[in-house]
Amino acid sequence: MTTPDQIRLIVEPRSFTAVGVSRRTGPGSYNLLEHLVRYGYKGHVYPVNPYTDEILGIKTYPRVSAVPEVTDLALISLPRSSVVQAVKDCIEKGIKAIIIISQGFADANDEEGRRMQDEIVALAKSSGTRILGPNTFGVANAALRFCTAYLPIPMEENGVGTISQTGATFVGLNDIRLVGKAIDVGDACDVDIVDCLEFFEQDDDTRVLALHIEGMPDAKRFLETVQRVALKKPVVALKTGRSGRSAQAVQSHTGALAGRDELWDVALREAGVVRVDDIEELADTLRAFLTLSAPGGNGIGVMTPTGGFGIIAADACSKFDMEVVEFTDGTMAGLRALSPEWLGVGNPVDYFPGVSIMGHPRDEMELAAMRLIMADERVDAVLGVMGAFGPELGDDLAAMAREMSRDFPDKPLVYFLYGPFFEQVRAKLESVGTCLGFSSPERAARALAHLLRRAAFLSRYEASRKGG
Amino acid sequence: MTTPDQIRLIVEPRSFTAVGVSRRTGPGSYNLLEHLVRYGYKGHVYPVNPYTDEILGIKTYPRVSAVPEVTDLALISLPRSSVVQAVKDCIEKGIKAIIIISQGFADANDEEGRRMQDEIVALAKSSGTRILGPNTFGVANAALRFCTAYLPIPMEENGVGTISQTGATFVGLNDIRLVGKAIDVGDACDVDIVDCLEFFEQDDDTRVLALHIEGMPDAKRFLETVQRVALKKPVVALKTGRSGRSAQAVQSHTGALAGRDELWDVALREAGVVRVDDIEELADTLRAFLTLSAPGGNGIGVMTPTGGFGIIAADACSKFDMEVVEFTDGTMAGLRALSPEWLGVGNPVDYFPGVSIMGHPRDEMELAAMRLIMADERVDAVLGVMGAFGPELGDDLAAMAREMSRDFPDKPLVYFLYGPFFEQVRAKLESVGTCLGFSSPERAARALAHLLRRAAFLSRYEASRKGG
Repeated sequence: MTTPDQIRLIVEPRSFTAVGVSRRTGPGSYNLLEHLVRYGYKGHVYPVNPYTDEILGIKTYPRVSAVPEVTDLALISLPRSSVVQAVKDCIEKGIKAIIIISQGFADANDEEGRRMQDEIVALAKSSGTRILGPNTFGVANAALRFCTAYLPIPMEENGVGTISQTGATFVGLNDIRLVGKAIDVGDACDVDIVDCLEFFEQDDDTRVLALHIEGMPDAKRFLETVQRVALKKPVVALKTGRSGRSAQAVQSHTGALAGRDELWDVALREAGVVRVDDIEELADTLRAFLTLSAPGGNGIGVMTPTGGFGIIAADACSKFDMEVVEFTDGTMAGLRALSPEWLGVGNPVDYFPGVSIMGHPRDEMELAAMRLIMADERVDAVLGVMGAFGPELGDDLAAMAREMSRDFPDKPLVYFLYGPFFEQVRAKLESVGTCLGFSSPERAARALAHLLRRAAFLSRYEASRKGG
Repeated sequence: MTTPDQIRLIVEPRSFTAVGVSRRTGPGSYNLLEHLVRYGYKGHVYPVNPYTDEILGIKTYPRVSAVPEVTDLALISLPRSSVVQAVKDCIEKGIKAIIIISQGFADANDEEGRRMQDEIVALAKSSGTRILGPNTFGVANAALRFCTAYLPIPMEENGVGTISQTGATFVGLNDIRLVGKAIDVGDACDVDIVDCLEFFEQDDDTRVLALHIEGMPDAKRFLETVQRVALKKPVVALKTGRSGRSAQAVQSHTGALAGRDELWDVALREAGVVRVDDIEELADTLRAFLTLSAPGGNGIGVMTPTGGFGIIAADACSKFDMEVVEFTDGTMAGLRALSPEWLGVGNPVDYFPGVSIMGHPRDEMELAAMRLIMADERVDAVLGVMGAFGPELGDDLAAMAREMSRDFPDKPLVYFLYGPFFEQVRAKLESVGTCLGFSSPERAARALAHLLRRAAFLSRYEASRKGG
């Protein structure tokens, strides 16, 4: 069995044996079966518990050997001292994939933890059974309605594949769910980030990869693999453990070495990985790769009903090396025709005097100005500014965005939205499916810049292949 | 009349004459009277319109001279060519404060605009009438239910005073409303940012000042005044027009000069102004000054249910020069007693093994760990991490936060919240009134850093005063 096939047993089990499911249910019990029932897991679970016959109406088995099937996967959630024996039981049963949720192995500060982890690794190697963890939330798979975390998580089939060194990512960020499919490698005693990369490389449901990296023992093997994957799908990475204090915490979290941050920076860039600095940037960048087409260059047109926020948007573009272009003469002439004669038209385009002074209806003025900007050959993407001061504004915006996406499919359209109806207007805009709204122009410009960076990586690779 | 008294006529008029109110009402009409009715303006408005007797049931007057009262304020919203005559009419009537909404003066690219603006300035100087604008949204005042903008805006009596070169700020940012009280100085032909500073300096309703600055002619006078104000209340400034392209746009927006950005940076810091880089930072920082007590130093305790996000939080603290401290022996002993013996306890504090392995109820474990950290003499503030995976989690969090605020009032408590119920959990936490939730640990740490920066400015000033 290839590595991706084995990882698939872990991420997409048609059946699994759950060792160490508690009889306690309800609030504060963190009972996995309860979550699985709520999710509507599409496979079959065999809980193992020697003290009862059923939990939540689901038949239980006194020991692994009593389970009537060799399941795709076993999940072990027991006090650490009982884990090694449970691994042996599962291997003996013939199970080829195991997740160890339990903590207190390489992540512990005692010898006993490391010794037991070594024993588990030896069992994996000698049997060919692949082991994820210990010290992990395990996996999540929205399509299968499956998650091994002891906390309930939100699921969304969104094309995101996540490889993480913490299960906290399973809960999702504020602007995006990271499940899709997700793997928390935990202490990574056997299955590691590279194995997971190979799985997601071949997984057709996964369109974008999110990596959360604390550290790893074999960076060379990782970088070779991730570059190969990055040529096929966007890979966005949050590398943590940057400061001295947090690097120390990495050691006690997963037993990994954080490594020198500036080396990571260079290595990830060379490998075509988009590195992000924080979780908001991670969410924004994933959303951009899922939704927007890549701009053909860094030329930006800014479209705004307020001069002041147009300036803020221009500052933001400049911060991320996006150029607020000089429009062509044709565009300028078109804008002048729509505006009062005394208005100094240019980029950013302040279209509101066309409404308040020239008397053009707002939606018509907005559409006319947007069409002029989009059609400008120097413009590769448009950053719009809009005050979300009423929920109904989202409808007009979505109608315009839909038209632009149809007529200018290669020029991404993003909006900086502000005000009390931000969420409602953003939801309308994003219902178009090809546009995004952001809560600051910096976040919008940064997302475009990341798209451009990846496009540049792909062209460089293409050029070097042809050149060689 | 002192400048603050004159500005008060503009910001808090008991009555005003509205010159140029349209008969058109309903969607797309941008009719000011309609907004005032909806707000419930607590003063009296006299609309001037020669073509009708009433608009929306409100009696109108054919010309300024026919208004039966000398109102506190006049508002002029006419085509630019009619503005000078309207200003003359208002002055003749004896009105001492005028707002000119109309555009096309110093902001225009023609001679005519500048010439008319000069004429207006001369009228102001010779009459003693103060003029705000032109090219402005005017003012907003939540307590008075008053706003002169032609767009409807959300109002909130929140202690924020805003001085802006764009009315876009009136609509508010995503995490805070900027009204409070707000003044858009527009082209600043007469009333300028410094005049507004003097008003807010004396305004008891205003606890924190937000400045949006594009540029100004007399930076020296501004810096002297703003430093004086900053000693009394926090002043947070967003200075825009940083890039070449945006500085050019500033010129055509309000006719101001953007100035060299690095000089602004130094000057604002020296004056005790907290400079922010973008509108999200502006919102976060204002919220911090409104809500949190200033930490006594940069020592941070990080409290987390997930090792991985604890590391991310530690990175964030370090980025903003907040120190994730070594706890005292007493704190360490207390944490060890709550945790499995093999757990490498420290800062960040991962309290979840105390729940999942030691079996402490989550709320009790959280409270016990939080209390230990808060009591540590090296800790000046606590950054908590929490997954918002259920709306009910906000209740426990708020209960704990309330207790901490009572027992440790000088140690601010902020949370990084993530997940699908972010808004609900944050609202519960913030209902305590002394704590804040943020969507990234960077934003939380940055807010604390700004509090600390202002505290340092005040101590330096105090020391230099005693020293001198």
